[in-house]
Amino acid sequence: MKLVVIGAGNLATNIAIALYKARHSIVQVYSRTIESAQALAEKVGAKASDDIDSLSTDADIYLVSVTDSALASVLQQAVKGREGAFFVHTAGSMPMDLIPTPRRGVLYPMQTFSKQRLIEFASIPIFIEASNDKDLGGLERLARSVSQRVYNLSSADRVYLHLAAVFCSNFTNHCYTLSDEILRVHGIPFDVMLPLIDEVAEKVHTVTPKDAQTGPAARHDRNVIERHLQLLSDNPNIQQIYRIMSNSIAND
Amino acid sequence: MKLVVIGAGNLATNIAIALYKARHSIVQVYSRTIESAQALAEKVGAKASDDIDSLSTDADIYLVSVTDSALASVLQQAVKGREGAFFVHTAGSMPMDLIPTPRRGVLYPMQTFSKQRLIEFASIPIFIEASNDKDLGGLERLARSVSQRVYNLSSADRVYLHLAAVFCSNFTNHCYTLSDEILRVHGIPFDVMLPLIDEVAEKVHTVTPKDAQTGPAARHDRNVIERHLQLLSDNPNIQQIYRIMSNSIAND
Repeated sequence: MKLVVIGAGNLATNIAIALYKARHSIVQVYSRTIESAQALAEKVGAKASDDIDSLSTDADIYLVSVTDSALASVLQQAVKGREGAFFVHTAGSMPMDLIPTPRRGVLYPMQTFSKQRLIEFASIPIFIEASNDKDLGGLERLARSVSQRVYNLSSADRVYLHLAAVFCSNFTNHCYTLSDEILRVHGIPFDVMLPLIDEVAEKVHTVTPKDAQTGPAARHDRNVIERHLQLLSDNPNIQQIYRIMSNSIAND
Repeated sequence: MKLVVIGAGNLATNIAIALYKARHSIVQVYSRTIESAQALAEKVGAKASDDIDSLSTDADIYLVSVTDSALASVLQQAVKGREGAFFVHTAGSMPMDLIPTPRRGVLYPMQTFSKQRLIEFASIPIFIEASNDKDLGGLERLARSVSQRVYNLSSADRVYLHLAAVFCSNFTNHCYTLSDEILRVHGIPFDVMLPLIDEVAEKVHTVTPKDAQTGPAARHDRNVIERHLQLLSDNPNIQQIYRIMSNSIAND
């Protein structure tokens, strides 16, 4: 397929490279700054542009992958003069109907992306949606060319998927950060935690997270919990998180 | 070395099997019920016992691995008539001095254990401590026979290590549980989260967790945060956790 990629951030970079490797033709990459457009365009054999109005008008899909807060205004600009084209955004938490054209869709690869670390797409779940069956078919073929796990999901359900992903990804990572802060004060390197972190992630491949739960809160060990809260008395923020998480585990 | 293992729970089972495979001689396994003592004893070529007073008196190390809340009373019983022996407990959050004999130590393998899932010990960090240098040497040899990562750590610092582990393990796992609860209501299977979970765990092998942080709170996206809080309005517990974690990330 012939694609225009609008955006050059973490997600845009990872998707564009995966699509390029799957032999799709990316004709243009747009970004607000020509430097970032070029950085991605070079990697996927595309032309770079910082002028949204002059983008090609005959691409099969316009893939819009920008930050959530910029999405509505970028879409407004991008569709001008291309009202018959198929526009697709990649934002897990944004509804499909944000796109102001009749042919619209969503392609949401659920993963955490960074530009520095390219991800193997093959096993990433991709959730798709489109405003008509024909475009849904096209979008599904596109998604299947980079991943074996493609699901249809409505905007209404996708917001819950995105919310659930915040817990599994952003909040777990923040737990690592708080752990790092505690260790740092006592001169213990964070990497001693890595085998534990790996095992906790690995365990839920075969056991439900509820059944995998261990620790003082799960066994209602008030003594340990009280001691831990006391150790955190000089850090009210971490202490509050410890208390609320422990209560939630104990009541589960 | 000649060992007596007191306890037959998750941790005792995993350690005893690792020590047995490293060709140490486990002479007895004690548990309150003979059934659970037998279940472990069979796996490590040891005799089973449910009578703590009749345990062997000439083992090199008495390894006490029971729940934190039972540890003090089990130790009291176990040391009777063995006041000259070397007693070692395995509890990350309990001080060495809980052991009421002059020759005492701690061997804390930092990992989450279950009886069903045997863990490769080789890469698990083991934190050790002993009341005298000679016993510390013996304990270090024992630990090094099952793991390549053995560290000396005082009781005072170990409580912080254990606290940090609660964040990396128990609290991250609870984030998975909350995610599962959100998905379940919308008929989405939890296993769609596994690639994301794996990547978040994998990322902190090369990047500090603080630098790895992504998501609406990290980019101060009030719109998404408010929408998520609204989606959780029928679940005040999860909503509170979402709010507090997001604030903590945003302020980090």
